[in-house]
Amino acid sequence: MASHGFWSLGGDNAGTNTGSQSPSTPRAWCQAAAQKLSGGIGSKLCALLNVGEVEKTADPAAKQPPQTAAGSCGCNKPCTCTKPDVVFSDLYSTDLLPALDGDTKTMTFLQEVVDLLLAYIVESFDRETKVIDFHYPNELLQLNNWELQDEPATLDDILISCRATLKYAIKTAHPRYFNQLSTGLDMVGLAADWLTSTANTNMFTYEVAPVFVLLEYVTLKKMREIIGWPDGRGDGIFSPGGAISNMYAMLLARFKMFPEVKEKGMSSVPRLAAFTSEHVRPQKINDQTHFSIKKGAAALGIGTESVISLCCLVLVQGFVPFFVSATAGTTVYGAFDPLIAISDICRKYNVWMHVDGAWGGSLLMSGRHRWKLDGVERANSVTWNPHKMMSVPLQCSALLVREEGLMQNCNQMHACYLFQQDKHYDLSYDTGDKALQCGRHVDIFKLWLMWRAKGTIGFEAQIDKCLELSEYLYNKIKDREGYQMVFDGKPQHTNVCFWYLPPGIRYMEDKEEQKKRLHKVAPVIKARMMEYGTTMVSYQPQGDKVNFFRMVISNPAATFEDIDFLIEEIERLGHDL
Amino acid sequence: MASHGFWSLGGDNAGTNTGSQSPSTPRAWCQAAAQKLSGGIGSKLCALLNVGEVEKTADPAAKQPPQTAAGSCGCNKPCTCTKPDVVFSDLYSTDLLPALDGDTKTMTFLQEVVDLLLAYIVESFDRETKVIDFHYPNELLQLNNWELQDEPATLDDILISCRATLKYAIKTAHPRYFNQLSTGLDMVGLAADWLTSTANTNMFTYEVAPVFVLLEYVTLKKMREIIGWPDGRGDGIFSPGGAISNMYAMLLARFKMFPEVKEKGMSSVPRLAAFTSEHVRPQKINDQTHFSIKKGAAALGIGTESVISLCCLVLVQGFVPFFVSATAGTTVYGAFDPLIAISDICRKYNVWMHVDGAWGGSLLMSGRHRWKLDGVERANSVTWNPHKMMSVPLQCSALLVREEGLMQNCNQMHACYLFQQDKHYDLSYDTGDKALQCGRHVDIFKLWLMWRAKGTIGFEAQIDKCLELSEYLYNKIKDREGYQMVFDGKPQHTNVCFWYLPPGIRYMEDKEEQKKRLHKVAPVIKARMMEYGTTMVSYQPQGDKVNFFRMVISNPAATFEDIDFLIEEIERLGHDL
Repeated sequence: MASHGFWSLGGDNAGTNTGSQSPSTPRAWCQAAAQKLSGGIGSKLCALLNVGEVEKTADPAAKQPPQTAAGSCGCNKPCTCTKPDVVFSDLYSTDLLPALDGDTKTMTFLQEVVDLLLAYIVESFDRETKVIDFHYPNELLQLNNWELQDEPATLDDILISCRATLKYAIKTAHPRYFNQLSTGLDMVGLAADWLTSTANTNMFTYEVAPVFVLLEYVTLKKMREIIGWPDGRGDGIFSPGGAISNMYAMLLARFKMFPEVKEKGMSSVPRLAAFTSEHVRPQKINDQTHFSIKKGAAALGIGTESVISLCCLVLVQGFVPFFVSATAGTTVYGAFDPLIAISDICRKYNVWMHVDGAWGGSLLMSGRHRWKLDGVERANSVTWNPHKMMSVPLQCSALLVREEGLMQNCNQMHACYLFQQDKHYDLSYDTGDKALQCGRHVDIFKLWLMWRAKGTIGFEAQIDKCLELSEYLYNKIKDREGYQMVFDGKPQHTNVCFWYLPPGIRYMEDKEEQKKRLHKVAPVIKARMMEYGTTMVSYQPQGDKVNFFRMVISNPAATFEDIDFLIEEIERLGHDL
Repeated sequence: MASHGFWSLGGDNAGTNTGSQSPSTPRAWCQAAAQKLSGGIGSKLCALLNVGEVEKTADPAAKQPPQTAAGSCGCNKPCTCTKPDVVFSDLYSTDLLPALDGDTKTMTFLQEVVDLLLAYIVESFDRETKVIDFHYPNELLQLNNWELQDEPATLDDILISCRATLKYAIKTAHPRYFNQLSTGLDMVGLAADWLTSTANTNMFTYEVAPVFVLLEYVTLKKMREIIGWPDGRGDGIFSPGGAISNMYAMLLARFKMFPEVKEKGMSSVPRLAAFTSEHVRPQKINDQTHFSIKKGAAALGIGTESVISLCCLVLVQGFVPFFVSATAGTTVYGAFDPLIAISDICRKYNVWMHVDGAWGGSLLMSGRHRWKLDGVERANSVTWNPHKMMSVPLQCSALLVREEGLMQNCNQMHACYLFQQDKHYDLSYDTGDKALQCGRHVDIFKLWLMWRAKGTIGFEAQIDKCLELSEYLYNKIKDREGYQMVFDGKPQHTNVCFWYLPPGIRYMEDKEEQKKRLHKVAPVIKARMMEYGTTMVSYQPQGDKVNFFRMVISNPAATFEDIDFLIEEIERLGHDL
């Protein structure tokens, strides 16, 4: 695989994209961009992409940034303006704010970075660019000097590092990036995250994050209303991801049943059993509960052996059932547990019912699909990750809890040196002591601002569209020559799991040999996808099933044509296998 | 307290600042800004601040944004350019990318947000602006419509929401913001965080975050070298804050001694005891270990009663000591435990030694101060939060571990559907399975880029300067009329703990009554500080000590004059009490 100089984010990268007809020199790319983008922004983009490049590039034609072109100052009219006279190669971070007279230098530097980011964003949505410019780890280590030094670098070097980082980053906004449950890049969410970074505070007390604390309060209440808890009452928290949200739930369930565990530990309680529902699904899918339940059990001193399949829910000698985790949208198959049936069992045995809706919880926002979570309102706690199906920038995971006050009782340590009790405002807004963490990252603003921008109906439309795309994919391949579905019936979520059988193994009579060879197909196609950088989709084995593709769609940028492209690309890359 | 319309971020906010002589109308503020900032950026700032305001403001003079002023297009020369012709009040988030022809609208919208952020940043560093425009929770709830709606809002509304959020945010970059251990705003760190948001990926596998995974590897190694572990060998992870890093350490210690706990839970192991060192400090400070150790013990099923003072380290009947947490920089007093002595005890009893250096770990980068952590290289694990003393944007917390491979063994769940074993690159870079979390936020890039920009010597200078400032404060007040220090001797870290006694209670003979009244002084002064918005510093009681101020300095923007100001302000606000 060719390694390209990282100075050439704009031109070279676009030009070497397989199958693309992009112009192959930076200058040509600039001209194309200027034509494509109205209002002079194309020229601006072009000018920006050349900043910092001029000394490095081997292409003498690029040595003169188009300073005389229309709008090279950043405006949208032909003009003679130039950028502020700041020479980054003579400047260091110590010249920026809070340095005296650092205002102009700071704004110019930050603007320079933003210009890189804007260019990267526009490029990311362009199907003619690569999803990833992949290099193997040892190769990537050598493509740049990533080592940390004793001496400072100039701001010019810093900008070069930013460019290099973007060049080798995966374009998660790309319409053909399907690799994870979290894909896509929402522009309002991104703006909100930039603002969050700039505010640089944490969710500790009202005092240090007044607006964000209120917005968390407003948003959690709204989410609880959608779950269906009366008047949206209850509690909740935004945590660093679904695994931690699930762990919080398990912690609460244990504390609810055995409050003495907080002080005395597990030695004070009988041996506990947590149940998951992997074998009770209607479609008889032998799917796995998310591994986070086991991680949680291991961490909390409960032990992974205490995580037991729900169909075995009997009072095993010496084990006390305290927690059932039903999954709403499994990671691989996107399957939904029957929540009403499970809640009946939980009521009968008086066990805490948790719904892990990290992936599927967002379907609650869809009038067409929320029936898949019928019964969720009976749960004691729900994990719901807006950073997955709602495409909120990473990270954004909520744990919602039905009982009020329990989180505080479970987790508070009465650290009066952190949570002064004689402050002059309503202390119920100091949420820090109900968290496991001390400071907590501000994850709320991006969700709140996106919700504001889309409205509930906007999220619904976005989610429905992804499900439509997956149905399109399913219908397209279910009877297509060379494809085989991993499980029967229409997928419940956007997960479409399938094998692609290249012609060479499609008709093999030795089924064992066929299986062996099929196991190697998906990894090779995936490796080729990454090397070409055209698309990315996940694969894995599961139980006795050999490697299959798991297509998931949460990327709002994807279209029917991108689904068509994926299928064609799999066939193009796998035909010879 | 007056409530100001939030349309007036620039003018009104600056104008109503107590004690400031800023101009009191938006227009006047603009003129002042234009004079102050060179290169026309003042005009730009001014123009930006007026965008979106024009329809809302009651001031008819502000209805004409200064489009004809020099540089209103954003350039630094007099020109006749105008901004791209995008009317946000007619646009919705669905008009942005990935919408067809969304490029220009997206760039213009994001630029608009960035312009707000740049203005906010410049304002934040200006001592004449407020640290906070404080409102009580119920008041703040009414100052804006924060509720989430079914219908979408226009992009104009979104920009207004951004403005409102910034208006009521705390300016953590402000040179007089001392309220937390994490203060200040680093410009390179901020740029890096913006880039991180734009890349929008997580630290799961090399496949989805190639550069960030490499940079985490490079940076953790460097940090281990600084700790003093041979060749920087070992392991580590960036976690969502110091409390979680400490919990990781406890989890590893337990697993190291009793690996069967992972599967069998606490029922398979004897009752454990974790030790902290609160009573063994040389200065006989009765300080608290950070409450995160207790939170961790509660969560892990060990129980808070098993967290025992190190001076009681005896083999209590049935308790097995497995973990000692020595603190390098306590939260309130900034005290350092004697690590060498503690490591001797740990070796004798074969107990895991953890150093909680969340606050004090950064002193390892200072030639002048690192002796305070002598012995740290003997630890099994170290928590070190660059988001505190190194002023890296929140969140950035590292756990460093001496033994290689332990984290993986402790936390991995062999989820082959997440971590395929037949991928085409070196799988040792897939770090997801050694974390408790599944996806992990990218916290590395801001630290790495700042390190690059400052060099190790730059961090050293920044840290030394903060310690110098705290020594200056200590020297200034230790013998000053009306002040009393909370503990004897020079502070070890930047924590300066003191009481201010207003004249009215300074000479009281009834010491009990004096104590009672003194307890109320700090809360009232703090409330007044927040209402005036001039500065912010923390206070708390501790043990039998009534409320005292805890000044901490991690803000690189602070100067000797800001320390002088703090003292004068405390006296101004507390003189009458």
